[in-house]
Amino acid sequence: MIRKLLIANRGEIAVRIIRSAREMGIKTVAVFSESDREALHVQMADEAHCIGPASAKDSYLNTINLMSIAKLTECNAIHPGYGFLAENAEFAELCKECNITFVGPTAQTIRKMGAKDIARKTMIDAEVPITLGSEGTINDVDEGIKIAEDIGYPVIIKATAGGGGKGIRIARNQQELRDGIRITQQEAEAAFGNPNVYLEKYIIDFRHIEVQILADNYGNVIHLGERDCTIQRRLQKLLEESPSPGIDSETREKITEVAVKAAKAANYSGAGTIEFIYDLKDKEFYFMEMNTRIQVEHPVTEMLTGIDIVKEQIRIASGGKLRYSQEDVTFNGWAMECRINAENPERNFMPSPGTVEAYLPPGGFGVRVDSAVYSGCTISPYYDSMVAKVITHGESREEAIDRMKRALSEFLITGVNTTIPFHMKLLNHDTFISGEFNTKFLDLYDLN
Amino acid sequence: MIRKLLIANRGEIAVRIIRSAREMGIKTVAVFSESDREALHVQMADEAHCIGPASAKDSYLNTINLMSIAKLTECNAIHPGYGFLAENAEFAELCKECNITFVGPTAQTIRKMGAKDIARKTMIDAEVPITLGSEGTINDVDEGIKIAEDIGYPVIIKATAGGGGKGIRIARNQQELRDGIRITQQEAEAAFGNPNVYLEKYIIDFRHIEVQILADNYGNVIHLGERDCTIQRRLQKLLEESPSPGIDSETREKITEVAVKAAKAANYSGAGTIEFIYDLKDKEFYFMEMNTRIQVEHPVTEMLTGIDIVKEQIRIASGGKLRYSQEDVTFNGWAMECRINAENPERNFMPSPGTVEAYLPPGGFGVRVDSAVYSGCTISPYYDSMVAKVITHGESREEAIDRMKRALSEFLITGVNTTIPFHMKLLNHDTFISGEFNTKFLDLYDLN
Repeated sequence: MIRKLLIANRGEIAVRIIRSAREMGIKTVAVFSESDREALHVQMADEAHCIGPASAKDSYLNTINLMSIAKLTECNAIHPGYGFLAENAEFAELCKECNITFVGPTAQTIRKMGAKDIARKTMIDAEVPITLGSEGTINDVDEGIKIAEDIGYPVIIKATAGGGGKGIRIARNQQELRDGIRITQQEAEAAFGNPNVYLEKYIIDFRHIEVQILADNYGNVIHLGERDCTIQRRLQKLLEESPSPGIDSETREKITEVAVKAAKAANYSGAGTIEFIYDLKDKEFYFMEMNTRIQVEHPVTEMLTGIDIVKEQIRIASGGKLRYSQEDVTFNGWAMECRINAENPERNFMPSPGTVEAYLPPGGFGVRVDSAVYSGCTISPYYDSMVAKVITHGESREEAIDRMKRALSEFLITGVNTTIPFHMKLLNHDTFISGEFNTKFLDLYDLN
Repeated sequence: MIRKLLIANRGEIAVRIIRSAREMGIKTVAVFSESDREALHVQMADEAHCIGPASAKDSYLNTINLMSIAKLTECNAIHPGYGFLAENAEFAELCKECNITFVGPTAQTIRKMGAKDIARKTMIDAEVPITLGSEGTINDVDEGIKIAEDIGYPVIIKATAGGGGKGIRIARNQQELRDGIRITQQEAEAAFGNPNVYLEKYIIDFRHIEVQILADNYGNVIHLGERDCTIQRRLQKLLEESPSPGIDSETREKITEVAVKAAKAANYSGAGTIEFIYDLKDKEFYFMEMNTRIQVEHPVTEMLTGIDIVKEQIRIASGGKLRYSQEDVTFNGWAMECRINAENPERNFMPSPGTVEAYLPPGGFGVRVDSAVYSGCTISPYYDSMVAKVITHGESREEAIDRMKRALSEFLITGVNTTIPFHMKLLNHDTFISGEFNTKFLDLYDLN
């Protein structure tokens, strides 16, 4: 049993995890960098300890400091949240060596799904559809050119260690491919310490659809439905919803079934997400990648199913069997999440750090706010600019949209710029309302 | 169709109504007394107008001013909320005469259910079980004594115009009855302008269980399940939950069925509540009264059913047919509401008006806050001390309780005293957790 949990993260996801742990009667230990001393997660946890200076690599990524604090505070588990160490197989291994439960899958699974080329091979073996592309990593530019000519341009160059919109580049012709491979390799080396890249056929007209998975250590795997994350800007998700307005019930049945198969092939345990490309031209879906962690957009699934995914992560990591069969899971209504970033949408989404003055989050029926903001807090320039998530739930997509507009219209946050005005424009856009759009939506329409 | 809605109320319920109206695309007009100039409902509505000085009788109860503002602002409907004019038949009539839709039942229905003696007679005719008591109002003390001797002490003296815990008094013997009738008559005359009282057998060991009703103008009536409001202090509800932990599924089926019958007998239209006494000794329930308005505790039903009751009120008042059949209504999980009052529980719940300094409401999964509080706002001594409602939803009663404790533990409100510490004690009390208690719970256990 997990008695005391260290949360190796910050911001809204640290607050999110503290909430579930507290409801389960589990003590929490927060960690913080020097610039996060006054942060909400620090104030909310049962204990909090500094782990280093502002720079993430010296604090939130400092595995030695984290492990020392976990040991000193007698934690018997660590929840990594998302980002930082969440998909770091070495850290999962270190936890195991130190006899601390890592709330997530095994290091082996993280490694297998993290190496995107190996993940692709695993899916081919499990007969999960994947896009055309290189078998594994490409050895040099010439091999890349040969493959690209085989499968046809445009192609997408991806770092095997990448993910979450990082280490990824499109090439429309040979010249772009030559440059792209070189730059992506350099970037991947710098960002992930691994220069390997692979190629995939680039599908232009598609939706991003992903399936939430829960799996225990006894071979039981269920899905909690799909999420549609097609609204993106530069490969960063901005708004997610469930169900997807872009697939029919037959596709829904197939994609969720395939996702369960994919999770089984990955020997998965815990909460994970299988991301798919849904090709709008040929109406087929293809495995994109698996995220072996809790995702930013998990609340939309929670609103639809009533299942607290973070609690299930903790129960599964404690050795619990899945508490639900697939038949137990019901899906009610429609849910939608807007990511509120401290950015200035009128100045090309430039980060807008600073001190929050007035703060009053929206409330009432069908509105959930996950945030670490409070009046007087500092939005740090060192980390992710996402500062709050507003999630609405309604009987229908129309009600979820109307409720989101209502919620955002009453969201008071001054002192920093936010993406709230951008979201209001998006929610009022006819194409968005129609539900018929692809990932190019924000390239096609200038919402400012 | 309702295009523009005047909200003849203040505080959290005014905010609540503005939210639903906004989601429906209906313009809102707030009214405010001089002491509410900076109130949240004033800031949130599309327009706001002053209707008089702080004293409610000169402002929120000033029907002439209200109607003038409704006409000047070209509203075609008025929502009365709860309290103030919500169950005032004359006001409903005035609206009709002025060609303004009153969001509620007809004046005739309000009158019939408001006169508690006539309501009792209506229920007898409809074969809805009621407690033993006088046929109608009692003419004098001697008649009261005769009836009390017939049905046995203790008896309860109730003003026919009372309700909501007002105009009500218990008599355990002849002397208490003599005094009680006289005092209740005087109080009722002063409070309601109507001195009439009637008698009921006083049931000592009971739970307060009520059923939410939705009815349209075409004879369709459904229920949205029951709420248990047994946790009371001096007849004021403090915590409500749904489903009730105190009845079995057979009783649930019966009580909801009888409630539908009662609403039909009242010729009801809109959202209403049938309140019952559930006698724990003989396991029978008896009609207590019908509330012909939205109730404070309606959110627990919304959380369980996903149905926005205020929107349904507005749709029904606009002439819409019920959008749900009884079979469409599903009940998911468990919901609970704590009323947060600006009172000092350690000083006998003395009101604690003042200026709120820091304010940060709880958030995250399964937590809803309905409130009109913000940092810097004034809690007025002129009105109800209830300033916020925290509603939690979980898979089970246990999860709803754990979530409520978590939510209240993170609720930051300084500058005034609140009942949050009282609720924390209540939620941790073994008897409360067991679910087995009656309305005397707070008399039996000193939670301070």
